[in-house]
Amino acid sequence: MMEDRYFSPDPAQRQVARTLYETVQSLPLICPHGHVEPRLLADPNYQFGSPVDLLIIPDHYIFRMLYSQGISLEALGIPRQDGAAVESDHRAIWQSVCDHWYLFRATPTGIWVRDELSDVFGIDLKMNTANAQAIYDAIEEKLAQPEFRPRAMFERFNIEVLATTDAATDTLQYHQVIKESGWGGRVVPTFRPDAVVNIDTLNWGNHIEKLSTVSGIDVTDYASYIQALEQRRAFFKTMGATATDHAATSAYTAVLTDVEAETIFQRALAGKATAEDAKRFTGHMLIEMARMSSEDGLVMQLHVGAYRDHNQRIMDGFGQNMGADIPMTAEFTRSLKPLLDRYGNHPDMTVVLFNLDETNYSRELAPLAGHYPILKLGPPWWFFDSLLGMHRYFDGVIETAGLYNTAGFNDDTRAYPSIPARHDVWRRASADWLADKVVRQIIDEEDAAAMIAAMAYKLAKSTYKL
Amino acid sequence: MMEDRYFSPDPAQRQVARTLYETVQSLPLICPHGHVEPRLLADPNYQFGSPVDLLIIPDHYIFRMLYSQGISLEALGIPRQDGAAVESDHRAIWQSVCDHWYLFRATPTGIWVRDELSDVFGIDLKMNTANAQAIYDAIEEKLAQPEFRPRAMFERFNIEVLATTDAATDTLQYHQVIKESGWGGRVVPTFRPDAVVNIDTLNWGNHIEKLSTVSGIDVTDYASYIQALEQRRAFFKTMGATATDHAATSAYTAVLTDVEAETIFQRALAGKATAEDAKRFTGHMLIEMARMSSEDGLVMQLHVGAYRDHNQRIMDGFGQNMGADIPMTAEFTRSLKPLLDRYGNHPDMTVVLFNLDETNYSRELAPLAGHYPILKLGPPWWFFDSLLGMHRYFDGVIETAGLYNTAGFNDDTRAYPSIPARHDVWRRASADWLADKVVRQIIDEEDAAAMIAAMAYKLAKSTYKL
Amino acid sequence: MMEDRYFSPDPAQRQVARTLYETVQSLPLICPHGHVEPRLLADPNYQFGSPVDLLIIPDHYIFRMLYSQGISLEALGIPRQDGAAVESDHRAIWQSVCDHWYLFRATPTGIWVRDELSDVFGIDLKMNTANAQAIYDAIEEKLAQPEFRPRAMFERFNIEVLATTDAATDTLQYHQVIKESGWGGRVVPTFRPDAVVNIDTLNWGNHIEKLSTVSGIDVTDYASYIQALEQRRAFFKTMGATATDHAATSAYTAVLTDVEAETIFQRALAGKATAEDAKRFTGHMLIEMARMSSEDGLVMQLHVGAYRDHNQRIMDGFGQNMGADIPMTAEFTRSLKPLLDRYGNHPDMTVVLFNLDETNYSRELAPLAGHYPILKLGPPWWFFDSLLGMHRYFDGVIETAGLYNTAGFNDDTRAYPSIPARHDVWRRASADWLADKVVRQIIDEEDAAAMIAAMAYKLAKSTYKL
Repeated sequence: MMEDRYFSPDPAQRQVARTLYETVQSLPLICPHGHVEPRLLADPNYQFGSPVDLLIIPDHYIFRMLYSQGISLEALGIPRQDGAAVESDHRAIWQSVCDHWYLFRATPTGIWVRDELSDVFGIDLKMNTANAQAIYDAIEEKLAQPEFRPRAMFERFNIEVLATTDAATDTLQYHQVIKESGWGGRVVPTFRPDAVVNIDTLNWGNHIEKLSTVSGIDVTDYASYIQALEQRRAFFKTMGATATDHAATSAYTAVLTDVEAETIFQRALAGKATAEDAKRFTGHMLIEMARMSSEDGLVMQLHVGAYRDHNQRIMDGFGQNMGADIPMTAEFTRSLKPLLDRYGNHPDMTVVLFNLDETNYSRELAPLAGHYPILKLGPPWWFFDSLLGMHRYFDGVIETAGLYNTAGFNDDTRAYPSIPARHDVWRRASADWLADKVVRQIIDEEDAAAMIAAMAYKLAKSTYKL
Repeated sequence: MMEDRYFSPDPAQRQVARTLYETVQSLPLICPHGHVEPRLLADPNYQFGSPVDLLIIPDHYIFRMLYSQGISLEALGIPRQDGAAVESDHRAIWQSVCDHWYLFRATPTGIWVRDELSDVFGIDLKMNTANAQAIYDAIEEKLAQPEFRPRAMFERFNIEVLATTDAATDTLQYHQVIKESGWGGRVVPTFRPDAVVNIDTLNWGNHIEKLSTVSGIDVTDYASYIQALEQRRAFFKTMGATATDHAATSAYTAVLTDVEAETIFQRALAGKATAEDAKRFTGHMLIEMARMSSEDGLVMQLHVGAYRDHNQRIMDGFGQNMGADIPMTAEFTRSLKPLLDRYGNHPDMTVVLFNLDETNYSRELAPLAGHYPILKLGPPWWFFDSLLGMHRYFDGVIETAGLYNTAGFNDDTRAYPSIPARHDVWRRASADWLADKVVRQIIDEEDAAAMIAAMAYKLAKSTYKL
Repeated sequence: MMEDRYFSPDPAQRQVARTLYETVQSLPLICPHGHVEPRLLADPNYQFGSPVDLLIIPDHYIFRMLYSQGISLEALGIPRQDGAAVESDHRAIWQSVCDHWYLFRATPTGIWVRDELSDVFGIDLKMNTANAQAIYDAIEEKLAQPEFRPRAMFERFNIEVLATTDAATDTLQYHQVIKESGWGGRVVPTFRPDAVVNIDTLNWGNHIEKLSTVSGIDVTDYASYIQALEQRRAFFKTMGATATDHAATSAYTAVLTDVEAETIFQRALAGKATAEDAKRFTGHMLIEMARMSSEDGLVMQLHVGAYRDHNQRIMDGFGQNMGADIPMTAEFTRSLKPLLDRYGNHPDMTVVLFNLDETNYSRELAPLAGHYPILKLGPPWWFFDSLLGMHRYFDGVIETAGLYNTAGFNDDTRAYPSIPARHDVWRRASADWLADKVVRQIIDEEDAAAMIAAMAYKLAKSTYKL
């Protein structure tokens, strides 16, 4: 009954969408960017805990919405920074979540969880007050089975490759364990140096100390800092990394002289850097990271435009990344020019752009990617990883950038069992969008078939060199 | 024939839309924000005057469009500030309006007037040159009947509650008359203190004098000013108010120290406040108004982003609010943070946000409302109170904020007899949007039925505590 | 089979769209703004060269996309500034273009070229590797025939009038030749003074010298400069011009005093103008150009928001306008106010606005055009001259501005044989958009018929006084 879900109701379009979808439905999953913890896959016997441990506590998409309607994070079992008691009765938490599940009507979370329950756990009950405990029971029962351990899921999900996101200072010990375990799943790290690059990071000095330790290079000045970063990138490459990832408030880039870079770096070490220093240093380091990518071939991802940890009370009580990040306008045309002046025409280099300001799709991102050889556009990010978000992205990007300057899909998730649902939504949305182009005779079926294969599988694989 | 108007032509979607619509078509109207003059309802025998008095002269949506095509406001009978003669032949004005009615093809005004003529006045003639006088005759005939007095319309429209918008200095005399009249219609005031809060208001000093008079508190400094505002809020509450309303150029908020507030207030009293003073004072007073709402429970509405009275010649000739207000970009993520830092997590407080920059729907407003407990999103405002505007609003908001962080509909109109048409457009647009979600199997029919009831009736009632 | 292309698949909507489209399909083409070179039409025996000369080398829409995927401009035969050798084997270039034509799937260029091959050249082969040489042969064969000379095409295309875009310093010699040739085609110039108005233009001094020469007025100061510009406008009018065109980075306008204008002008003559000078001078000159339009009746076009020649390496290697222009945000509400304060209410004057920031459609442009008598909105420009771009434009503009404050279509192209395809896309997109309004009963068929005639033909003709 649900086999045509998310497709247009128009019979002609639906028929084409279904046909296109069927050609990619079973393709392996390429997961070039996400936040699954590698320790899940390092331990062959890893178990997920309760349904609440699995689905609620780690998922800020879910608890932010419940919080917005007056349910405290404590009541949802989210641990406090100060260690004060929070609700520990997971059946009660689950009941409350189901009681309020109506809040997720017509949201991406609503359909991911429904699809995940159905397709991963074989549960076709609706999340609501009446079904709460039965669903809890059913998930609990499944999680006790060996088939629901992470490695078994990895295989059943048909994941061809999964990239994690790892701090520059990470020893990649879990990746090492996976590698040495003889297990066949391909899990690769991604080099994310934000905590050492953004000098306004909380406890930045500690991260620099850690960088010295893991790199074996005593980071005392800008030159040794750059050297240590290069050492880490080389190490990540030996561990299978094909990409780096960078988060910044804005896409601002500008080259500093060595003297300026050194001066700001020393101010930061002394704990005296200003907000302006931080902005300029990040803007410089993005170009420096592009320089390194031009040399070592790691694909550079840039995520800009989030105001992180906007709610001070939540930040104080529960820490970072607790569902209180809010998007801002972003600008690329002027901001990226210094980086593009240096590396924009590089013949063998890739920068993948992500942002949270959809107005850039058609205005700045598609025109930039439709000209500069190094630029590719990442899929709709975060709040826009949704049916309508994808539709707006395709509409805004493809006419001007062309499909082949986009980077396919990534699920960007830490919610491991939701991975197939997320890819499935993308594949269905892609099929539906292309079907509209077919029935309007903008493209023919041959083109559409090639495009859906690119969207569902090939573009992610080729963009990220996987 | 028109019973399916505004619905998708797809037969499956249309069928679902119609079914959903029929469940809410006859629900009472909740009107939590608008500009109907209470004197219409204070006088049981109030009569509307001519069709031009009723439909053209008070409606800047209509005369702005005619003006844009070269028809002078004088020719439309709009009174001049200097009292110079304007066209007084209402039949001639009406003829000219009908001659130019083609300008309103595919506009919201075009469908409101058509629906209003048909559903309120029983006139199914098209507005055009040939029909002009016949329509005029028919409206005139109706207006002479007791059934077309405001109170009779109120009952026939099935209005459950109507909120007006009233200056902080208003004595609410008409509300008093209504209350004491024994008539059953529920009409409540809304506290709108812009003229005393925005110190760059024309003749601000006069408004402050009036504030002293009506409050009985001699407003000579910032402390007495705050005291007078609190007195007025308390008075409005006794008169049935459940909400306040605030208009500002931007959503900028920032706390002033008492000394700063006093200093700016004294400069304003002395007529020496600067533009920067005005911005800072409004930004401070928005937080102060939030503080009062956190104490007295009045729902706080914030409307930002209009460049008021943009056309100096029109302003000089005809005064304020004459169809020359133009939207501007708006910013919320950074602007509202100071207010949210103080009150964003309040357990029992509501701030409803409106703006004229649709890019904020998905970028800033939905993420904010999908996190902060106090925030709700008002319906599409002003230029966006239209079929496509609603569609973009639903698309931009619901996936991220969820439906239940929105505030339902308000008609925001001074065009009293257009109220049912406006609610009907919203209900139809809601049904059509939900029907698309049903036929794509994003939600099921049970969810859709609950959602349409919320959109058409419940959310406005609960958000505004009506 | 392709007769319903670009229409909705819904049978009811498609039927209405087809019926509407058929009423305008064969109407003459009004081309009020574009970049066709008049010399094509001055020489009755002009021949286009090879298919690559005709379709690839002059079309930056095409080579920018190929460049973005790593194909050098040299490999496409684009001449270098330094005269270094580039690929000269046009068959090899054509083969490479066809090999990569998949990049244009679902892009406007993809459908223009397909429609042009089919409708102008009678070639129904798909652009791909296998068909490359056959298509080359077929085009080459056609181009050798007299029916494919520009004047013959002009007549077959049913062009009623074609406006070119010409520098203020242009002698309009080709227009003179066309005029004197006795040929019946109407080709009119457009006055575009950017190179003399924007003082940061490359070699601005040379343009001023040229202005002195062609005007016969020795331009030595601001007064003689204005006088020379007025002389040129008058000359363009005698040559049939009905419009001017102005490109600016932003819509910023502000009046300078005569002393300020003179001071900046002298600094510019001395080669010492700053970036701020350039901005202020352009902002002033836009108002001055509006003043001249208020006197001589030339329709003023304003195109804002492109960051021109963003890629320094391409600019250095190949010059300006080589597919590296990138849009930026634009602002109108505050920026245009100084101009509108002076001329916004003028009873007989027209300013047509274009921009590359689609967020302005509903936020600023439609409200401005729906109020100010002088303002009309140009069709979606450049990157947005596409099926989805048109859809967004109609959606964003018509509800608030009304159709009759828009300026119809212009093809804005230098790709001469693509003109019919571009108008056809617009006519089909218009029909499809209106059909949706009919089937939703927002407008009736009578209204739709009048609107499609306006969109396809009448509005362009009346707005530009053609």
